[in-house]
Amino acid sequence: MELERAVLEERLKSFLREDLGYGDITTDSLVDPTVEGIATIVCNEPGVIAGLKESLALLEISGCSGTSNMKDGDHVTAGSEIIKAIGPANSLLKVERTALNLLCHMSGVATITSELVKLAAKKQGRPVRIACTRKTLPGLRYFEKKAVAIGGGDTHRLRLDDAVLIKDNHLAIAGGVSECIKKARAQVSFTKKIEVEATTSKEAIETAKAGADIVLLDNMKPDDIKRTEAELVKMGLREKIILEASGGIQRENIAAYLTSGVDVISMGMITHSARSIDMSMNIRSRTGRRT
Amino acid sequence: MELERAVLEERLKSFLREDLGYGDITTDSLVDPTVEGIATIVCNEPGVIAGLKESLALLEISGCSGTSNMKDGDHVTAGSEIIKAIGPANSLLKVERTALNLLCHMSGVATITSELVKLAAKKQGRPVRIACTRKTLPGLRYFEKKAVAIGGGDTHRLRLDDAVLIKDNHLAIAGGVSECIKKARAQVSFTKKIEVEATTSKEAIETAKAGADIVLLDNMKPDDIKRTEAELVKMGLREKIILEASGGIQRENIAAYLTSGVDVISMGMITHSARSIDMSMNIRSRTGRRT
Amino acid sequence: MELERAVLEERLKSFLREDLGYGDITTDSLVDPTVEGIATIVCNEPGVIAGLKESLALLEISGCSGTSNMKDGDHVTAGSEIIKAIGPANSLLKVERTALNLLCHMSGVATITSELVKLAAKKQGRPVRIACTRKTLPGLRYFEKKAVAIGGGDTHRLRLDDAVLIKDNHLAIAGGVSECIKKARAQVSFTKKIEVEATTSKEAIETAKAGADIVLLDNMKPDDIKRTEAELVKMGLREKIILEASGGIQRENIAAYLTSGVDVISMGMITHSARSIDMSMNIRSRTGRRT
Amino acid sequence: MELERAVLEERLKSFLREDLGYGDITTDSLVDPTVEGIATIVCNEPGVIAGLKESLALLEISGCSGTSNMKDGDHVTAGSEIIKAIGPANSLLKVERTALNLLCHMSGVATITSELVKLAAKKQGRPVRIACTRKTLPGLRYFEKKAVAIGGGDTHRLRLDDAVLIKDNHLAIAGGVSECIKKARAQVSFTKKIEVEATTSKEAIETAKAGADIVLLDNMKPDDIKRTEAELVKMGLREKIILEASGGIQRENIAAYLTSGVDVISMGMITHSARSIDMSMNIRSRTGRRT
Amino acid sequence: MELERAVLEERLKSFLREDLGYGDITTDSLVDPTVEGIATIVCNEPGVIAGLKESLALLEISGCSGTSNMKDGDHVTAGSEIIKAIGPANSLLKVERTALNLLCHMSGVATITSELVKLAAKKQGRPVRIACTRKTLPGLRYFEKKAVAIGGGDTHRLRLDDAVLIKDNHLAIAGGVSECIKKARAQVSFTKKIEVEATTSKEAIETAKAGADIVLLDNMKPDDIKRTEAELVKMGLREKIILEASGGIQRENIAAYLTSGVDVISMGMITHSARSIDMSMNIRSRTGRRT
Amino acid sequence: MELERAVLEERLKSFLREDLGYGDITTDSLVDPTVEGIATIVCNEPGVIAGLKESLALLEISGCSGTSNMKDGDHVTAGSEIIKAIGPANSLLKVERTALNLLCHMSGVATITSELVKLAAKKQGRPVRIACTRKTLPGLRYFEKKAVAIGGGDTHRLRLDDAVLIKDNHLAIAGGVSECIKKARAQVSFTKKIEVEATTSKEAIETAKAGADIVLLDNMKPDDIKRTEAELVKMGLREKIILEASGGIQRENIAAYLTSGVDVISMGMITHSARSIDMSMNIRSRTGRRT
Repeated sequence: MELERAVLEERLKSFLREDLGYGDITTDSLVDPTVEGIATIVCNEPGVIAGLKESLALLEISGCSGTSNMKDGDHVTAGSEIIKAIGPANSLLKVERTALNLLCHMSGVATITSELVKLAAKKQGRPVRIACTRKTLPGLRYFEKKAVAIGGGDTHRLRLDDAVLIKDNHLAIAGGVSECIKKARAQVSFTKKIEVEATTSKEAIETAKAGADIVLLDNMKPDDIKRTEAELVKMGLREKIILEASGGIQRENIAAYLTSGVDVISMGMITHSARSIDMSMNIRSRTGRRT
Repeated sequence: MELERAVLEERLKSFLREDLGYGDITTDSLVDPTVEGIATIVCNEPGVIAGLKESLALLEISGCSGTSNMKDGDHVTAGSEIIKAIGPANSLLKVERTALNLLCHMSGVATITSELVKLAAKKQGRPVRIACTRKTLPGLRYFEKKAVAIGGGDTHRLRLDDAVLIKDNHLAIAGGVSECIKKARAQVSFTKKIEVEATTSKEAIETAKAGADIVLLDNMKPDDIKRTEAELVKMGLREKIILEASGGIQRENIAAYLTSGVDVISMGMITHSARSIDMSMNIRSRTGRRT
Repeated sequence: MELERAVLEERLKSFLREDLGYGDITTDSLVDPTVEGIATIVCNEPGVIAGLKESLALLEISGCSGTSNMKDGDHVTAGSEIIKAIGPANSLLKVERTALNLLCHMSGVATITSELVKLAAKKQGRPVRIACTRKTLPGLRYFEKKAVAIGGGDTHRLRLDDAVLIKDNHLAIAGGVSECIKKARAQVSFTKKIEVEATTSKEAIETAKAGADIVLLDNMKPDDIKRTEAELVKMGLREKIILEASGGIQRENIAAYLTSGVDVISMGMITHSARSIDMSMNIRSRTGRRT
Repeated sequence: MELERAVLEERLKSFLREDLGYGDITTDSLVDPTVEGIATIVCNEPGVIAGLKESLALLEISGCSGTSNMKDGDHVTAGSEIIKAIGPANSLLKVERTALNLLCHMSGVATITSELVKLAAKKQGRPVRIACTRKTLPGLRYFEKKAVAIGGGDTHRLRLDDAVLIKDNHLAIAGGVSECIKKARAQVSFTKKIEVEATTSKEAIETAKAGADIVLLDNMKPDDIKRTEAELVKMGLREKIILEASGGIQRENIAAYLTSGVDVISMGMITHSARSIDMSMNIRSRTGRRT
Repeated sequence: MELERAVLEERLKSFLREDLGYGDITTDSLVDPTVEGIATIVCNEPGVIAGLKESLALLEISGCSGTSNMKDGDHVTAGSEIIKAIGPANSLLKVERTALNLLCHMSGVATITSELVKLAAKKQGRPVRIACTRKTLPGLRYFEKKAVAIGGGDTHRLRLDDAVLIKDNHLAIAGGVSECIKKARAQVSFTKKIEVEATTSKEAIETAKAGADIVLLDNMKPDDIKRTEAELVKMGLREKIILEASGGIQRENIAAYLTSGVDVISMGMITHSARSIDMSMNIRSRTGRRT
Repeated sequence: MELERAVLEERLKSFLREDLGYGDITTDSLVDPTVEGIATIVCNEPGVIAGLKESLALLEISGCSGTSNMKDGDHVTAGSEIIKAIGPANSLLKVERTALNLLCHMSGVATITSELVKLAAKKQGRPVRIACTRKTLPGLRYFEKKAVAIGGGDTHRLRLDDAVLIKDNHLAIAGGVSECIKKARAQVSFTKKIEVEATTSKEAIETAKAGADIVLLDNMKPDDIKRTEAELVKMGLREKIILEASGGIQRENIAAYLTSGVDVISMGMITHSARSIDMSMNIRSRTGRRT
């Protein structure tokens, strides 16, 4: 999932503009614009790196040039050098915070995703995907979805227009499950999948019978999920439907869900509540002015 | 700190656009556009509410109309109703996620800020402000700074152009503290304050002597801060300068900083790593279709 | 498929801006701004109407107010009144061309789509959907896809990110069909369908075996398609895959494709080469100045 | 008529963004980003090429590099290679559809324009220009007007602010022809021409007498136009005014208008109903991976 | 010349955004948002008012409501009340500076234009128009051109695409006057006028002979202009061409040009060097808090 | 005060777009796009140059390349060559007016500022800064503030969010000076200065006592200012506060204010009423076509 460079740059410029206003009055008053600088971004704690392309693009937009020995998805230890950059010292100073803000957040999302994906990989049996949701921070959906993918997770729906997800609120207004699936099938492109939210085993089975592609088991206990899955197997419906569990799942209680028989576990917290990874940028004059 | 309504709406529309794409294919295929809906946003855990104005504006932009019995900054218990809204059911369904994403994040920022402000208020002596930094998520600076203010915190610099902050990286490139302060004073408007980063007691005192308005004690131990403050008092410089502590301060270790004699403690984590508050929106047809 | 009103308005304003420049110098020099006008949009030939919501929004943005006795998708005869509007006469004159340009184009797309959908509906057996493609005019994708839907057609992929379509060019670069499907399945969200282009019966069957959700039979003769379909039935794969025919299909030769056993026929010409429907707007002073 | 490159690029990027969304999930999951590709755009039917500069700019914006042995306005036969491009294979795949959509539409407009211009060139006597109108597709006016010019046509008014055109609707509201021309002359810059719509010979002559620069003979029969022209010659007014015929003129009936004595024939269908020219892009790995 | 309201508002919002940043920290910290205010804009010196529509729109965008007893173009004496407005006091405080900045500048442009137009009206013989040029301040062309029109002046070319003006620099590169006029006539729409710059009487006459619509007498002395005009009369060319004088004309030396026989005098200084008219806004609480 | 290059370019492109519309129809019809041109910008009167970076960027955006032997802030005599540029002749012709419009205005602002700064520098005693205000032309604040800085002036507040300025209108609505300062101190970040407007000596002293950082002596006579300053000295408050004089100060009467004891004199006229400096661009073919 990669924005075209030209399109990405427009987004990144708006981030720079947000921080800069009319300029960096500190740097502009102190730093001779002809001084060349050298900068290193160091990661101060272990984590999974995401946002390299974006950070390097920010540097380039600012007239600097950066390189990295890493690639997105790499696991790093505390103290690892992530990016080295050169360019006008004043440009490095101006882009510093924006680049770090994006890199640290994306790495935070990738890190928590990666942890959960590893947990999922350890368990036996049918593989389970860790997915994010549409619970992303406003304006950052692309960056967070991409970070989830870098962390090994599934990006789920990108927007309200790329798959059908019939939720509790829809059913409350629009009628029964089968009727809703039929309507959606008729009106929505054949290129779209249809997912339906179920809160009980009964609803889940009704959904599967009605021909949904995916059922979202919302806020169901792991044991209820297990029973539902077993029932679907018994009815010969299991291979026709993807099972997704969601609602109240955290790092602390994910284990039970991982062995509940679902195909996907989706969690809002990996995007909306990810802790930023701590990194810092060290900038020096390339001619070593200060001693 | 309030954006003009017209300007705010432009930002909010871009958030809606991010989620909607070409429309909510689920809702558009299922919900009769003439059905009127009623929605309630409920908070599922205790917290401090922030983002009411923004959420109500999102509803209004979407052709709905919301009200709240609360005001930004209110502490709520789990289960509290935050907003009640009416409007076309399909519009409520489309705005739901964007409104919640913003409201939950802003409330998350306000909640952690408020916790820390209360801790600060409990201790005796000179009052201490809890401030955020420029470590905000790209594109969300206004919303996060506002949430910090709602939580009782200090918004610190809004951008690189609203106050001077001479950091380690500047000093490394541009020369000594006094020279830098003199240069900045000469070149920057008389309406701006000048803050300088110091990592040792010696640097802090040099900064105070050089006439800075604020000194940022970066990554200094609480005891070192205490000694520095005492020294400044002795030298008659304490009342001429504001002391700000920053770097590695968390909820866990803030107590020692609160009694270290500083005026301000600034923390990046209240914006870049705030956990979203859990809320949900319940939408029903106003004519009670489903039973 | 409906853009939120606020988002739609931004697009419509850009269309107005394109036509207006700094204003309508003719109208501004001739028409007293206090004169109230009344306008009717009349359709000068039979067709299917699409773009009512957009035209009414354009009128409203311009300070006028329009109503229609029709709804999108209605078939009209020559001479039918489509919209009646009132408002400042100078505003009606300024919005006229932009509103007609959009309405006539969208109606053109809906009309040709509807004709083909009707042809498809007449034939017996398995129903066939008429779909558009990504061959839309730059900047008009939303409006053309919506018009296709109004005409009874299928909107197909909205963008490059809402379903996988592995084309000839991909296969030429990335390797064999099964390998590509496997890679895509692994990397793309479980919420996405996977479609693969095939140019021979053999490729189509390989694709079905490899587990694709849809196969695009590209530039295949109707007879070859028939044979392919029969083969898939024999192999028990027919119900597991959606068959789409595309490439060189026109109104003139569609009949043979309609009975070839496919589920979907997609055609670029219904968007990129649709003929605009002829409509005109008649504007008069409400106080009947001229006689 | 050439947009500055910088301004053109902003438009083209918005077209790319419309097609890409968050990225080309097919290509991103299948194609190694380091693979270099080579692409050729071939025209599958005879036509007049327009949009080369725009297509090459789209390629360049996408990080590719294209060349063409043609220039805008060239007539090509079926099978002609229009553009050859190299660049990262994944970038070529992402830009393919947007580049083709624009190139095929602009070429379609240029082709029909050129056909009509040739018809006009064949006839004897006073030369006749083929002009387009403001009946362009929303958002595409620049591209369509430019394609008309490439096809040898006249671009007519670009917007509502670049010349005065007093239409039937204006006269109905603002009063008689002479009064309107006088008002417009007084209020509009001396740099603007004034054109007036006439539906009868009498109105046309009144318009010429009143000093208009151009008269638009709207929906008049060729014979009526002939009589009007003869009358103007007789009255010594013919050389003072430009005669433009418009309304219901098509390829099928244009011959009679070409010899009716007018200077200009304007037709909406060359922009709003032009059929796209069929072209395709073939993309291969430069290292010839597949065999 | 009137932008559509919707389009105007977008421009005005960008002006508000420029002044506001994240909000008016003074007002937000001092003024209770429920306080209703009343404001009056007073003109502190005599002048011609322009920008009423824009100022009232700014007030409305800000949630206030303004009225004026004046209309654009009115001459006012010092102390006149221009606008009265009511609305939330904090909104009035936020919009104050932006509204005044625009209103005072537009009124400055209208005032100097009006003075010159009056001078021109006083002299006898053929009327002379006072026109502005493309020497407008970046981003303000629409507002300055409109203010010129309000002051009674001619707006001249709006952009590089609305009329042909062949300048010295063009002739230096592209060849002789007749050749250039011929080329332009052939390539540019029949709806456009063609103007040519001449610096000597000889060039002016060559231009008139070559069939230009307008000749721009650039930096020619009034006496030379007189002689040129007389010569054109003698040759029977005077009525076929519009004469415009430009270059170094100021309020101080305009008299001689007004009687030189030209139709138009154009001056850059009425837009790029207009002195703002002094106005101020007085805001009070409607409930008369302070006494 | 320097916008990042990427951000600056977006602003400059919007200026180009304003002038170009769909292209320079004169140049496009006359100038062979392969002709290389050479251009010189010459200053036709003495002044202080500002806007070099912006003009060179405009040239570069347009595909040309410019150099200057000057730097912003240089004093030039009439006839000085400011910029030399090469590039496609048609690009030079298209960018000419926009580049000059910006350069001439910024130089006008810098020139008047520089004159006043020199006057201030001549007088003895405590140095006085010449500051601009928020009375800038809409859309041009950055460029005018930067030109003021280049002319040696103080940029004052950039927006409503970068310092507190409690004005007459605030006091009228929100209460007394001390109360307002206390409220602002409590609610606004510790990084902000607080300035208060006073119209009498008594108010000024009250303000100083209440702990404001700056007092704005609004429309006070020089003698009153002197007395106020003396009083502040006597009370030991003078060194704790910055004194700014504003209101009705012009080049003609500034002398008395310069010796009145203030630290800053602020004047709206240096931005909103600055006279543009007269410059012109001469463009020739590099192969010297015309002789």
